[in-house]
Amino acid sequence: MNVLIVHAHPEKLSFTAALKNTAQQTFEQLGYTVEVSDLYEMNFNPIASKDDFEQLNQPEYFNYALEQRHALKQQQFSKDIEIEIEKVKRADLILFSFPLYWTSVPAILKGWIDRVFVSGLFYGGKRFYNHGGMTGKKAMLCLTLGGRSNMFGENTVHGPIEHYLSSIQRGTLAYVGFEVLPPFMAYHVPYISNEDRQNILMNFEDYIKNLDDLEALEFPHLENFDEKMNPLK
Amino acid sequence: MNVLIVHAHPEKLSFTAALKNTAQQTFEQLGYTVEVSDLYEMNFNPIASKDDFEQLNQPEYFNYALEQRHALKQQQFSKDIEIEIEKVKRADLILFSFPLYWTSVPAILKGWIDRVFVSGLFYGGKRFYNHGGMTGKKAMLCLTLGGRSNMFGENTVHGPIEHYLSSIQRGTLAYVGFEVLPPFMAYHVPYISNEDRQNILMNFEDYIKNLDDLEALEFPHLENFDEKMNPLK
Repeated sequence: MNVLIVHAHPEKLSFTAALKNTAQQTFEQLGYTVEVSDLYEMNFNPIASKDDFEQLNQPEYFNYALEQRHALKQQQFSKDIEIEIEKVKRADLILFSFPLYWTSVPAILKGWIDRVFVSGLFYGGKRFYNHGGMTGKKAMLCLTLGGRSNMFGENTVHGPIEHYLSSIQRGTLAYVGFEVLPPFMAYHVPYISNEDRQNILMNFEDYIKNLDDLEALEFPHLENFDEKMNPLK
Repeated sequence: MNVLIVHAHPEKLSFTAALKNTAQQTFEQLGYTVEVSDLYEMNFNPIASKDDFEQLNQPEYFNYALEQRHALKQQQFSKDIEIEIEKVKRADLILFSFPLYWTSVPAILKGWIDRVFVSGLFYGGKRFYNHGGMTGKKAMLCLTLGGRSNMFGENTVHGPIEHYLSSIQRGTLAYVGFEVLPPFMAYHVPYISNEDRQNILMNFEDYIKNLDDLEALEFPHLENFDEKMNPLK
């Protein structure tokens, strides 16, 4: 089994980094091969632009998805995108490690998705959800946040955290076919004790050791929709 | 009235740019003062990092929010952040113009939020939602997407679009106190006729001329929660 950890935190001593290190060590102990894309360390460029292609097919009118489809056939992605695509292809499981910024992923991680999840390979035409390009692979979030757990859920001040995570879990990962495992979330991180942090790290180690027991989140199956994507019956 | 348009599309001839231009012209005809932050044109840096501060208060352990609070007192933000903060301060209304990338904002726009919505000014302590730093100002999304409108909503293939937009509309804009107006959304854009596009532009012009009639979206009032953010009855 190959694991790819995509990590996005600017401080190497952060608790988010400690969780990432715990994941890496635990996976390695279990005999998995682990690759890490540490986006801050790589100084990863998050901006989707014309520079992502060695040559443009339609330079007079830039359409990002169309250029991706063209570049895929010609192998004309910029080198940094090519490298990340190959990592994804090798991986059986991708773990996303990040602090929640504005109830979402940090921009550097959003840009990794914008640029790496290319049209034609990850999705295209009727290839999405359970027909997406990444079917057979798993993905999972590991995130840290400042809020307390009682602030999220039905009838709470911020509402269900699943809504905030739906862009990445449903609109991105499930959309391209990943089986999405339940996220591991560490709440209230800037305010908790060192002992609490140690306990969270131990819980995360257990979580990873028992990944096979986790039930994947539920997302649509295209068989339940007609050609125009209206629900059947 | 001052309007700030934050625009994020890499192609100047795009329909998203046409909507942005329509907004700018219509607001100017109405006598508003309009500033535009065209993030691609500005080559805006979206990565929240140590470089955002002229000097670090705690260089041995980098905590982004704490450095923001320190920098705010000392006026030590990097110049590009300072300029955007001043634009926000001047604005009565911010319009966000973007194509939906992965059911969310493009990374360059996410990074504008990550870096510009600084702790201590936009929010902090119990200053959020109707007590946020931006109360009295309005914000609104104008977005383009490839999907059809029948693909979004309860019991559809992708579910309610409000869930995907909650990170920006609730977790970001409402959280810092903006009154959030209903979003203007142009569906199925890459596939529609020029005539349909012209109609959408005219509809958007009307939408802007009648902004005062729009009812803002509903978000929590802190008066309905106790000190620990548990709901009062």
